[in-house]
Amino acid sequence: MRYDIAVIGTGPAGVSAAITAKVRNINIILIGPGAMSWKIRKAHVIKNYPGLPDISGDGLADAYDKQLKSLGIEITDTKVSMVYSMGSYFSLQTSDGMIEASAVILATGVVSEASLPGEDDYVGRGVSYCATCDALFYKDKTVAVIGYSKEAEAEAEFLAETSEKVYYLPVFGKEYKECGIDGCIDGHAVQNYSVSGKYQNPEVISDIPKEITGGLKADTLVCEHGIKKVDGIFIIRDNIAADRLVPGLQMNGGHVSTDLSMSTNIKGCFVCGDITGTPYQYIKAAGQGNVAALSTVDYLNTLRKGM
Amino acid sequence: MRYDIAVIGTGPAGVSAAITAKVRNINIILIGPGAMSWKIRKAHVIKNYPGLPDISGDGLADAYDKQLKSLGIEITDTKVSMVYSMGSYFSLQTSDGMIEASAVILATGVVSEASLPGEDDYVGRGVSYCATCDALFYKDKTVAVIGYSKEAEAEAEFLAETSEKVYYLPVFGKEYKECGIDGCIDGHAVQNYSVSGKYQNPEVISDIPKEITGGLKADTLVCEHGIKKVDGIFIIRDNIAADRLVPGLQMNGGHVSTDLSMSTNIKGCFVCGDITGTPYQYIKAAGQGNVAALSTVDYLNTLRKGM
Repeated sequence: MRYDIAVIGTGPAGVSAAITAKVRNINIILIGPGAMSWKIRKAHVIKNYPGLPDISGDGLADAYDKQLKSLGIEITDTKVSMVYSMGSYFSLQTSDGMIEASAVILATGVVSEASLPGEDDYVGRGVSYCATCDALFYKDKTVAVIGYSKEAEAEAEFLAETSEKVYYLPVFGKEYKECGIDGCIDGHAVQNYSVSGKYQNPEVISDIPKEITGGLKADTLVCEHGIKKVDGIFIIRDNIAADRLVPGLQMNGGHVSTDLSMSTNIKGCFVCGDITGTPYQYIKAAGQGNVAALSTVDYLNTLRKGM
Repeated sequence: MRYDIAVIGTGPAGVSAAITAKVRNINIILIGPGAMSWKIRKAHVIKNYPGLPDISGDGLADAYDKQLKSLGIEITDTKVSMVYSMGSYFSLQTSDGMIEASAVILATGVVSEASLPGEDDYVGRGVSYCATCDALFYKDKTVAVIGYSKEAEAEAEFLAETSEKVYYLPVFGKEYKECGIDGCIDGHAVQNYSVSGKYQNPEVISDIPKEITGGLKADTLVCEHGIKKVDGIFIIRDNIAADRLVPGLQMNGGHVSTDLSMSTNIKGCFVCGDITGTPYQYIKAAGQGNVAALSTVDYLNTLRKGM
């Protein structure tokens, strides 16, 4: 089954795009964290959202949630690791398999962490952003998982089922103090795992990744206090940089190049919210989501007429 | 007194700009219809405003109103007929006198009526958009008032206090069926006034204006069923076209040329909402209002540093 529109991201931009598209009777899939972007919920109080004075982040997220449910929009809680433009449609690689859509709206926010030196050079050649997608390439091999978000734990554990050795480096920001894996406190490892059960547990490494090096393929993770020889490196962030998510996407600094219509250089790919640049504001994101949805509807109409 | 920002327009764009600027402690004046743009209130139900599902136009306007009050923002209910860029500040000609502001945010919506043939040629030479501003130029003379909105009645009556003869042509759309002047029913005149009291009452003309002609100055209003020789013609619309309101403003079709920052070709003049183009949507307007306010704050900071 092919969706009309895949909306990626569940912040105000993605939610708004989904609402407007659904009201226009478009067949959509809304992909992102089911509890909605933590960036909404983290807000203490939002003072400039017209119509909802002094609303808390939780309050806004709950209001969005209720509205999505009333429109019959479910959030598909998976992670998109790559979006391929196939000409007249898009193919999305997700942690739960491939998804097809005629058009894509990117509302994935900004990536706060810069790339590691060497990271961009080795994407697809030893560097991956999705364990469930690429684990089998590293069966019985040695991998490192760099976790910028709590989800990385599950990815590390998933890899440990098939890889011979998994190094896990939690490098969370302050938002993610709690780390669920045994031996990991306050986002930093304090002791190693012992082997247990049917697979090798991830070995938690308390070190800071500095660079990825190698030959034709990445083979070394250089950290502050040592190096790890590996066959593959998984980098798990909340968001993947837009031009890594959608190969060929034209950027302007760290943001996607767009205009008032929210279109991009890739036909059928639209953007909204923080991904388009500053200011990073809730109501601006919601407004752009609406525009992106309507521009996408126009695009779909053109597509239908052309076929 | 000079305001930091004059926000012109009380639709979702203007309200949002005012809210965001006020939250940033900017000294603003919000100018427009006190009951807020009729375009908000006329909405039966708005289905795609994230956070406020299925809200009515009245409901949204009331929510805005409450939020403005809670922030101590009062609406200045007057009409701006001209905005002059004075270099480092703007001078606004209004029905209640001049207002100065360091920066201006235009959120006046789109003008649904096209210009009359000849109108643009005679602006300032017999064609005016503000009776209270220009009435004295037509003392003891003959004028016509073309009313595209109900406010035109008051303008016609104001002119009748000083002009010798006032023709009043109500040409309302369906939104404005009720016309308050005696002899006017359903937006069309049914009988003429009689002279009464200290001044000549406006003569209601049931005809459709077609063209403005003249020599160096406008002197004739050509209507479907006849012509009127006049010294001046007042055209009263809900909104004045942006480039007539702000001389020199760069347009793109019927809309103001802008970009993602909501700036224009005139330094210190920003735009948001329907005035920037389609889609005409509440949440988009609110989002752009937020961006316009923050861009204006940036501009004010630059201005201060440069002084």
